[in-house]
Amino acid sequence: MISQNEYFDGNVRSLGAGDEQGKFTVGVIAPGEWTFGTSSAERMQLVRGSWDVKLPAESGEWVRYEAGSAFEVEAGVSFTVMNGEPVAYICSYD
Amino acid sequence: MISQNEYFDGNVRSLGAGDEQGKFTVGVIAPGEWTFGTSSAERMQLVRGSWDVKLPAESGEWVRYEAGSAFEVEAGVSFTVMNGEPVAYICSYD
Repeated sequence: MISQNEYFDGNVRSLGAGDEQGKFTVGVIAPGEWTFGTSSAERMQLVRGSWDVKLPAESGEWVRYEAGSAFEVEAGVSFTVMNGEPVAYICSYD
Repeated sequence: MISQNEYFDGNVRSLGAGDEQGKFTVGVIAPGEWTFGTSSAERMQLVRGSWDVKLPAESGEWVRYEAGSAFEVEAGVSFTVMNGEPVAYICSYD
């Protein structure tokens, strides 16, 4: 029912489920700089804390996001987040 | 760094961390009716989905909350949530 996912040696952990609107994961990210890739379109909403995001990871510029704000990532694109404190997010999948 | 918690045979899972503002957990709750107790004051904010909440669990009346809304629970109080679909929440501790 509720899936558990771990990335970067436990520095990123998430829990996954699905409802009428689709699949979602909520997660916590330890301080650091982390690059993710997408296999489907995602909407990343920050729930707690703040982070700087580079989208796409290769050539994007850093953009600061605060809790409550979100960004969209297309399928097959990588993005990097950098956070000085632990953050919590919710990711919604198309 | 990121703690993992499981309740009700995995029907409730959460991830925990802390920042300058204090401790927090994010979690996912499977459909059902679940009663929780508090050892310290908590602020429960719904991040995804909707639920009905009885606070305190014993004599409260059901109140419907949608994503984005929150309620506060004092230490030593139990509350019950009832949800027809999986929900995601963030809990902040004083």
